[in-house]
Amino acid sequence: MKLTIKVLDITSQGVLLTEADARAVGVLEGDRVQVLHEAKGESANVIVNITSTALPQGVIGLYLKTNRRLGFSDGEVAEVRETERPASIDLIRKKIDGGRLSKEEMLSIVKDTVSENLSPAELTAFVTASYIHGLDMDEVEHLTRSMVETGDRIQFTTHPIVDKHSIGGVPGNKISLLVVPIIAASGLRIPKTSSRAITGAGGTADLMEVLAPVEFTSDEVKRMTEKVGGVIVWGGSTNIAPADDRFIMVEYPFRIDATGQMLASVMAKKSAVGADLVVIDIPVGTGTKVPTVQDGRRLASQFMEIGERLKIRVECALTYGESLVGHSIGPNLEVREALSILEGAQDPGSLLQKSLGLSGIALEMAGKAARGQGYAMAEELLSSGKALGKLRQIIEIQGGDPKVRAGDIRPGEHQFVVNAPLDGYVVALNNRSLITVARAAGAPHDRGAGLIIHAKKGTKVKQGEPIVTIYAERSWRLQKAIEVGRQLMPVLVEGMLLSHVTPVHWV
Amino acid sequence: MKLTIKVLDITSQGVLLTEADARAVGVLEGDRVQVLHEAKGESANVIVNITSTALPQGVIGLYLKTNRRLGFSDGEVAEVRETERPASIDLIRKKIDGGRLSKEEMLSIVKDTVSENLSPAELTAFVTASYIHGLDMDEVEHLTRSMVETGDRIQFTTHPIVDKHSIGGVPGNKISLLVVPIIAASGLRIPKTSSRAITGAGGTADLMEVLAPVEFTSDEVKRMTEKVGGVIVWGGSTNIAPADDRFIMVEYPFRIDATGQMLASVMAKKSAVGADLVVIDIPVGTGTKVPTVQDGRRLASQFMEIGERLKIRVECALTYGESLVGHSIGPNLEVREALSILEGAQDPGSLLQKSLGLSGIALEMAGKAARGQGYAMAEELLSSGKALGKLRQIIEIQGGDPKVRAGDIRPGEHQFVVNAPLDGYVVALNNRSLITVARAAGAPHDRGAGLIIHAKKGTKVKQGEPIVTIYAERSWRLQKAIEVGRQLMPVLVEGMLLSHVTPVHWV
Repeated sequence: MKLTIKVLDITSQGVLLTEADARAVGVLEGDRVQVLHEAKGESANVIVNITSTALPQGVIGLYLKTNRRLGFSDGEVAEVRETERPASIDLIRKKIDGGRLSKEEMLSIVKDTVSENLSPAELTAFVTASYIHGLDMDEVEHLTRSMVETGDRIQFTTHPIVDKHSIGGVPGNKISLLVVPIIAASGLRIPKTSSRAITGAGGTADLMEVLAPVEFTSDEVKRMTEKVGGVIVWGGSTNIAPADDRFIMVEYPFRIDATGQMLASVMAKKSAVGADLVVIDIPVGTGTKVPTVQDGRRLASQFMEIGERLKIRVECALTYGESLVGHSIGPNLEVREALSILEGAQDPGSLLQKSLGLSGIALEMAGKAARGQGYAMAEELLSSGKALGKLRQIIEIQGGDPKVRAGDIRPGEHQFVVNAPLDGYVVALNNRSLITVARAAGAPHDRGAGLIIHAKKGTKVKQGEPIVTIYAERSWRLQKAIEVGRQLMPVLVEGMLLSHVTPVHWV
Repeated sequence: MKLTIKVLDITSQGVLLTEADARAVGVLEGDRVQVLHEAKGESANVIVNITSTALPQGVIGLYLKTNRRLGFSDGEVAEVRETERPASIDLIRKKIDGGRLSKEEMLSIVKDTVSENLSPAELTAFVTASYIHGLDMDEVEHLTRSMVETGDRIQFTTHPIVDKHSIGGVPGNKISLLVVPIIAASGLRIPKTSSRAITGAGGTADLMEVLAPVEFTSDEVKRMTEKVGGVIVWGGSTNIAPADDRFIMVEYPFRIDATGQMLASVMAKKSAVGADLVVIDIPVGTGTKVPTVQDGRRLASQFMEIGERLKIRVECALTYGESLVGHSIGPNLEVREALSILEGAQDPGSLLQKSLGLSGIALEMAGKAARGQGYAMAEELLSSGKALGKLRQIIEIQGGDPKVRAGDIRPGEHQFVVNAPLDGYVVALNNRSLITVARAAGAPHDRGAGLIIHAKKGTKVKQGEPIVTIYAERSWRLQKAIEVGRQLMPVLVEGMLLSHVTPVHWV
């Protein structure tokens, strides 16, 4: 039947029908209707919510996510019909029952994911079943290709295109802010799409946004990369592998981090931006996603296998993941730290060495440096100021202020210093707890919120010396972070007496 | 922070915040807030949707399902805080990872389910993981007890209390309309809660609603049962084991029918109504939930084990499930058929015998009849008119017309007869397809919609004889049912020539 559209300004999925219209269409709450935009030839297959008073009869409410693709305006007319659930639900059921999905079957699920034809619950079932039963390499390839095909693709006319990815799991990993300008300064092209924090205290996109806007279309990514050699943008705005964002959203509540899903997620984005060479950073160690070097090697070989299938050369770096990279956690603090290195600082060494190491691998893969010479070349690009100059160009083309300096970027004004309660050594530093404290302080939404860790694991400290400083933009946030810190005790200091363990004094 | 309530008349879960309020609370779309009704001391932990224009700043929108328990009115003030996800999400993650849930863990999940603290996606993950990994008998017991504890319980002062359940899977199974009055007519008490159709063409509650209202509280169920010996009500209105309805809602899209979940679902409802003796109907055969007699025996022993743990005596009847019970599918048609048996009809024999058989087991378990004499006693209660008299009392106490007769109940006025295309035998009758045709005709929402199957499997038919009649209340529904029937061909007639298979002619 024909119903008049009212776009509901609510970030949700589905449609809202009056009881009377639902009855006339022949559906109940939770059933599905097909909503057809006849002029555009677009349709969506969505779940029905019911109201008795929120809409007049004859009007259908469209939630924002459902209208994103349909593009209706208020007052337009849609054809609305009772419909069967999408066939991909039966394919998800097949995966629940332990079946293997073919290329066509995977594509059907991914298409319905992108079209918002599957509810969050249905996507959750897919992700849960894929995690429990696992995906074999064929399924990973099908999933990767399906994610690429259902989104934008960038095709560069010059080659090679370089890309870099860190699988995450270690806090403070702001190396993209250094690697991208170093690679681009060498004359290579690196169109880096990155994510915002979901569970962390700041994704690369959140960091870059301190310096410049990060929301661009894939056409803009291409144009800017061709002009200055590199960008650092938020992948979520590009429509590159859009299915991946949907999967990540439903994985988030359960912290599901299935290997197959991760391989596909990373490689789909690299394939869609047209990358020829990819270097992947795999942080290894207790508390990361990859506990042992053996696990790291296995994962690396899987990345390389998928790369081969997609005709992308992949090299992986297993990096030390048990301690944070640099000293800072939180957008402004991390950006300040990265900028200071570009401006010539030699500290923190962990950040400097990791950035040069990863950059060096990419320079060697691309043939810019001979094998074994990449690190030195990266170091030269950094120390000569070429990398800083390149970052300024990138900031400028993305619409930021290219004259920004590390000293201009201020942390939150509310601060609290945690001092060592006794002379001794820092024996434990819990990364996950540090992130939780940073988030309690407001990161990543409050850009000035975060932590500086003065004494990392193994450091000798004297009683009363600062160990951690917490920064917040709002005083109640600071109080909350202190409280959370008191509960979690993310840092342990131990004296000479080995059995005497003293948590850092938080109040 | 304090926000003013606006109840959103939308059948959904969660809250709606303006962008500004969300920022002030410190949450993004998809994060959770705690909404506190300070006067009542009730709170909910719910997922946030965002709007920029649908609400004024300072106002929080509460969806209906979330407000069901909070009970806010427009204009009241709630305390709204950023909050962590409920701990039961970590327990669901444990099940996803193949862990076994303790009594306390299962209770935590069920409590959050009943409180609407878990989203449909989170419940789907629980149900999917429980299905894939299975629940062991301890977990089934924990789940059962948790579902009982988180809802209403009926405690009768006299005993025994009898109950009956069919696990479903066979169409036209209207036997509760006969079994309940037969048992009650013997002087026993049987407080029968039943379900509405989800995937079928009519649940027992849908059928009973043709005769009388079916929505009652558990107190009303108790009072009515004490007065007339039995009721047939919709379980969904009673708050008995309310978690079960939530689980069933999320299982529905995937047609997940996990054994552990089913055992807990059935036994929780029986335990909560105070049943001492339960007879369970397990339809067996191709196309049912239980393909073989061996599977049926295994399921029966699981039901009996859970019964023992809960101190409920359980007996199971494995029944023939390959062919529908009686000749009718759809509310009015099924009720007419059941009433006609109570009024003295001897046909359909399948319905008569099954009802007497199940009733007989219960009469023997309760000691009303000696072992081996239950069937005869049930037959006497039926043929004497006592069962009909009892059903009239039940109809009356539930608020229906006790003088109703089978002949008063009319099927839909739009009809279509499918005739045999040749002389031969009905060799196949696809139950699932018959239900799909009945649903296409409008059942169960259109009470007059449904099918009469004139010739069941094995019946000899002559060319032109009626095989199936489709009934609908609306002509477009009838057309749709005919179309669906043409695609599915639920009945096959075959002549003497064994290789010559002729689908029934649908047009």
